[in-house]
Amino acid sequence: MKIVELVTKDLRFPTSQDRSGSDAMNPDPDYSAAYVLIKTQEGLYGHGFTFTIGRGNELCVAAIEALAPKVLGRTLEEIVQDFSGFWRKLTRDSQLRWLGPEKGVIHLATAAIINGLWDLWAKVEGKPLWKLLVDLSPEALIKTIDFRYIQDVLSPEEALELLKSRWPGRAEREQEVLKNGIPAYTTSVGWLGYSDEKIRSLCRKALQEGWEAFKLKVGASLDDDRKRCRIVREEIGHRTLMLDANQVWEVEEAIEWVQALAEFQPLWIEEPTNPDDILGHARIAQALAPIKVAAGEQIHNRIMFKQFFQAQALGYCQIDAARLGGVNEVLAVLLIAAKFGVPVCPHAGGVGLCEYVQHLSIFDFIALGGPLEQRRVEYVDHLHEHFVNPVQISHGRYLAPSAPGYSSEIKADSIERFTFPYGSFWNKEARSWKD
Amino acid sequence: MKIVELVTKDLRFPTSQDRSGSDAMNPDPDYSAAYVLIKTQEGLYGHGFTFTIGRGNELCVAAIEALAPKVLGRTLEEIVQDFSGFWRKLTRDSQLRWLGPEKGVIHLATAAIINGLWDLWAKVEGKPLWKLLVDLSPEALIKTIDFRYIQDVLSPEEALELLKSRWPGRAEREQEVLKNGIPAYTTSVGWLGYSDEKIRSLCRKALQEGWEAFKLKVGASLDDDRKRCRIVREEIGHRTLMLDANQVWEVEEAIEWVQALAEFQPLWIEEPTNPDDILGHARIAQALAPIKVAAGEQIHNRIMFKQFFQAQALGYCQIDAARLGGVNEVLAVLLIAAKFGVPVCPHAGGVGLCEYVQHLSIFDFIALGGPLEQRRVEYVDHLHEHFVNPVQISHGRYLAPSAPGYSSEIKADSIERFTFPYGSFWNKEARSWKD
Repeated sequence: MKIVELVTKDLRFPTSQDRSGSDAMNPDPDYSAAYVLIKTQEGLYGHGFTFTIGRGNELCVAAIEALAPKVLGRTLEEIVQDFSGFWRKLTRDSQLRWLGPEKGVIHLATAAIINGLWDLWAKVEGKPLWKLLVDLSPEALIKTIDFRYIQDVLSPEEALELLKSRWPGRAEREQEVLKNGIPAYTTSVGWLGYSDEKIRSLCRKALQEGWEAFKLKVGASLDDDRKRCRIVREEIGHRTLMLDANQVWEVEEAIEWVQALAEFQPLWIEEPTNPDDILGHARIAQALAPIKVAAGEQIHNRIMFKQFFQAQALGYCQIDAARLGGVNEVLAVLLIAAKFGVPVCPHAGGVGLCEYVQHLSIFDFIALGGPLEQRRVEYVDHLHEHFVNPVQISHGRYLAPSAPGYSSEIKADSIERFTFPYGSFWNKEARSWKD
Repeated sequence: MKIVELVTKDLRFPTSQDRSGSDAMNPDPDYSAAYVLIKTQEGLYGHGFTFTIGRGNELCVAAIEALAPKVLGRTLEEIVQDFSGFWRKLTRDSQLRWLGPEKGVIHLATAAIINGLWDLWAKVEGKPLWKLLVDLSPEALIKTIDFRYIQDVLSPEEALELLKSRWPGRAEREQEVLKNGIPAYTTSVGWLGYSDEKIRSLCRKALQEGWEAFKLKVGASLDDDRKRCRIVREEIGHRTLMLDANQVWEVEEAIEWVQALAEFQPLWIEEPTNPDDILGHARIAQALAPIKVAAGEQIHNRIMFKQFFQAQALGYCQIDAARLGGVNEVLAVLLIAAKFGVPVCPHAGGVGLCEYVQHLSIFDFIALGGPLEQRRVEYVDHLHEHFVNPVQISHGRYLAPSAPGYSSEIKADSIERFTFPYGSFWNKEARSWKD
């Protein structure tokens, strides 16, 4: 299974047209994917991508190309046999590492390639990614993880013990997931650009579909937030409400603002301030309890997550499958989160993040146990139509995917149409919209 | 002063030929600059760059181009009149921000552009950058700083008070700098790739030149480090020795390793572990006192520095003029460092970092006071020949630059020769070396 070609694509979807995805920090995203097709000599493909919100997606594509020489000519077998070693080679090219290290554009590109390799591996094994992960022995699993810079909180030996200690009940948990799926929450009701009427009608539609948890964007105006929270509470009753500020506040401002919304009893406040501010999040978490702090979609690597846990700054851990350096680094964070007893509720939405993270949460539940209902995976109902194996949602739950791979393959005609800037959408259809 | 053109250059210098710049993490860097010429309608130029160590420099160049539309068509006057507002526009384009935020490739590109604008401003004012900064009133100075996400430790009002409280003695400090320059230390004696004999002879040469402080790279082998420390101590006697591990250790490993070198009485251990690990640095600092911890060349923004200070993780703060988002963000960090009483000893070397940081340290001393001898600026003796206004070193001190600008202009023939991959060096001369 020699890897002979990496083909990159700059895919951009015009989500700013209807302000889907709009929040207090990101008013007009065009959800995008820096996409890579990893081709073997036999003509098999792994599909991977990272997610961006428009401009600059070309930088991630160029970064994938800068990393490509480290993949080309290697075999899948040698890569997966020493996957942590390969991950190190990819992230620790000393010259490219200078551009991060392990953050920003170069790490987003790492995610695309690594995820594409896991997709390829799972396809070769004929299993969905979650099942490939579940079927790996604890010893094999920890051999995929780079423990560098996290050994002060989790050594490989400790990780092995942790996995073994959670072994009992695995078969039952797998059966439970296959039967009932895993719980989700919806972000589709409360984008900041939506009118009150739209929020109300989307809540009603979501309730009819069986949703039990709802997330609302906040942070632009306190009066407006109060009004919107009231609308959602009126509609959803005692069901779960989460709030998401997308980093708009200073530390003390976050505390005051959320205290002013406490009457609406949110489960969590997400991204109250800058994602680098570990100590700021810790201060906010302490001040706002019992309201929890959630964050993670822009926490860029395992070293940052380690400290968020050490500082007791997170009540919920929102890993991002395309921001962390692919599955290998996600596994490290899942293990540290399990050690600290923090539930993982992945960030999703975007382009294909739902498709990715369902696998990670299913693995997390089966391999690491603990209450399933505390693990709610974000769900956003757009762009799934571009995927060959889109997520299946039923009554507010993700059903376990069964197709081999990481659910990351984008349809050929979507690639043709939304490749930037020369795909048929951007080359022709977009003109009338932009004019 | 309308800005009408941004010209970018991918400049790479073949420093891996003789292993200058080699350390435990970076064995064979080719010191590089993603360089930008900012041209006004009148034909004036500002010159800015960020620094990388080779592969991936093209990503920073592409990121400068992605940011260029935010600069083109604006006037220098409107930019500097509300410089913090302009800085926010550059760093907070919501789509490009996703690629960081404020870290990695996109933030390195921000540094290049922002530094180029300060160079242009200083040239227009006919002053070296340090003098432009010193001559700004405290009110004007804080108007260049974006206080977002740092207000929990430093508000604009507090920054203003701090600057005013340090006002007495400014004229004397400026005279002192003009007369004696500012103290430096040399890193040129102790690159990891150097032989024992070379280290010994470089120490002797440096002593003859009047150097009083010397930095040695460590971290590849403890036995080797002991031997190299002994050589340097034999040569330099009771002068100042610093150690630099370039992030090679785990947290506990760092503590044990440096304790094993404590007999050589280093002033500081630099970059003992990963630059994201604030809490790890704090643990190391606590365990190794009175040996100090120094870091900063890869601490990527003011929010990270804020926490390093909050956690008492740094004994010396090593700002990087091309890693932080240009002069404006450096000013924020200088002010926070002053509030916490942590001396700033900038990271330099690379391509043109010495040229940049001399201005920042001179400003720091004149405007914020405190002991001059605690501020030692790194000095590395290569690549200065490519600069129009290279640093002037005398008896181990930087002399205050007098040419207008930020000393950031690279000679035209160096640009022609070292542009990658089609400059004459890479196109012709490099062939015989690489073969």
